[in-house]
Amino acid sequence: MKTEVTIQGLSASLNPARTARKIIGFVPTMGNLHEGHLNLVREARKLCDVVVVSIFVNPIQFGPNEDFENYPRTLEQDSHLLADAGCDIIFAPSVEQMYGSQPRLTNISVGKITDDLCGKSRPGHFDGVAVVVTKLFNIVQPNYAFFGQKDYQQLAVIRQLVRDLNLPLEVIGVPITRAADGLALSSRNGYLSTEERQLAPSIYQSLKNAELELQQGQALSQVLDHVKSQLTQAGLVVEYVEARTPELQAVHEFNQSLVLFVAAKLGNTRLIDNLQVNYSH
Amino acid sequence: MKTEVTIQGLSASLNPARTARKIIGFVPTMGNLHEGHLNLVREARKLCDVVVVSIFVNPIQFGPNEDFENYPRTLEQDSHLLADAGCDIIFAPSVEQMYGSQPRLTNISVGKITDDLCGKSRPGHFDGVAVVVTKLFNIVQPNYAFFGQKDYQQLAVIRQLVRDLNLPLEVIGVPITRAADGLALSSRNGYLSTEERQLAPSIYQSLKNAELELQQGQALSQVLDHVKSQLTQAGLVVEYVEARTPELQAVHEFNQSLVLFVAAKLGNTRLIDNLQVNYSH
Repeated sequence: MKTEVTIQGLSASLNPARTARKIIGFVPTMGNLHEGHLNLVREARKLCDVVVVSIFVNPIQFGPNEDFENYPRTLEQDSHLLADAGCDIIFAPSVEQMYGSQPRLTNISVGKITDDLCGKSRPGHFDGVAVVVTKLFNIVQPNYAFFGQKDYQQLAVIRQLVRDLNLPLEVIGVPITRAADGLALSSRNGYLSTEERQLAPSIYQSLKNAELELQQGQALSQVLDHVKSQLTQAGLVVEYVEARTPELQAVHEFNQSLVLFVAAKLGNTRLIDNLQVNYSH
Repeated sequence: MKTEVTIQGLSASLNPARTARKIIGFVPTMGNLHEGHLNLVREARKLCDVVVVSIFVNPIQFGPNEDFENYPRTLEQDSHLLADAGCDIIFAPSVEQMYGSQPRLTNISVGKITDDLCGKSRPGHFDGVAVVVTKLFNIVQPNYAFFGQKDYQQLAVIRQLVRDLNLPLEVIGVPITRAADGLALSSRNGYLSTEERQLAPSIYQSLKNAELELQQGQALSQVLDHVKSQLTQAGLVVEYVEARTPELQAVHEFNQSLVLFVAAKLGNTRLIDNLQVNYSH
């Protein structure tokens, strides 16, 4: 496994694979890797000849009061994990390497599907994601790119971006990896205190409970309210509990498959999760 | 020479060239070709193994009161000209092929350098250009793309876009092609009446005159005013007469090389032109 820190170095490393028209798989990450990321890498390993993983904490997708400065950087540990998971090339550029010394004047905005859910409380976040992902796609030029379904809205934004801009690659969404107690794996789980960590699985429990209630015929709005009250009772501060179609369209009753979304704060840590609930008559 | 009207067809046509890692040159146009376009194709022919020319009148770069509907479509004539100039593949997609049936949610905006000159009177124009050019680049995946310097601000926008998004290609700017009387070639010249066509060269004449006055030491603001009055006297309605650095930064005196820009209307036809004036102490 190689680690490249410059665009030029990465291009040189990938050039033989490109010439041989090998299938290139790409997993963009912000590092501080957990089993969720490693499952993306394993998925890429299955489908592709060459697996590239980027590790880049992207400043422009963080809001002014978010955790950019404190976001955990653990490159050495990440490298060991990636070697074991089957990564061929780590791309770990500096901010300077990605954004250069000249001011960036270009912005990419994906409308509508970023208006609510996480878009509401994180203005500019998805623009920052769209820009960095487009840049990384253009640098790596993969055949396949792998994203976790935990960041469901992000995945939808990237699918839309790829379709709208004809980016020449296929996006693969990979199911959420969960701890044994159901908590969706996330780098931000590392911010939780021992007590908070014990409360955190209530998010998944409330979603599973909602699934059951929907399948038992309870009204959607009532079920969503119930998730809110369960989480509030467990000590979380709920940002949103919402249902959407898999394409993130509004949905008012459980008459089709839908996705339930939660964002909530546990102390200072913002956690998100989602659960697809299938509809069958 | 082949003509492809679908993205899939174009990909299939380009696939052997990609596999052989041939150098692909790309000239995006809106058709109704003149010697200016053909010079771009000839330039591409010199540098590249395969030359692709797109002909697509892009709806999203036209304002609501602009000439999208009436923009001349002359595919058959264009095909003959392109075959002679050395084009290998024409890509002439429909609007449906480029934008699909689902609504586009993604926008690309290049800030600052689009705030004035043509950006001022054509809100959204450069966003529309940025989106279609990014799409075309992703579809064609060229090594080089060729643009005329007549649309100087557009060329600057595309250079910025390519840099900011790490688009994997090189942009080549090609000097303006002019009629014998100095008029910059443009598809929109076809809208001019015989009388208007006789007045139109006054734009270039006023720019050449300005160059001379600057080199003789006249103050920049006075020289720009003189261009305005010359054009107004010749019967044109001036939209702007401006000077910028080659990177489109503001400039207040002739103490470095600069570019003079004119936009003016002759009847209903909006014409633009520019001239680089070199500075030497």
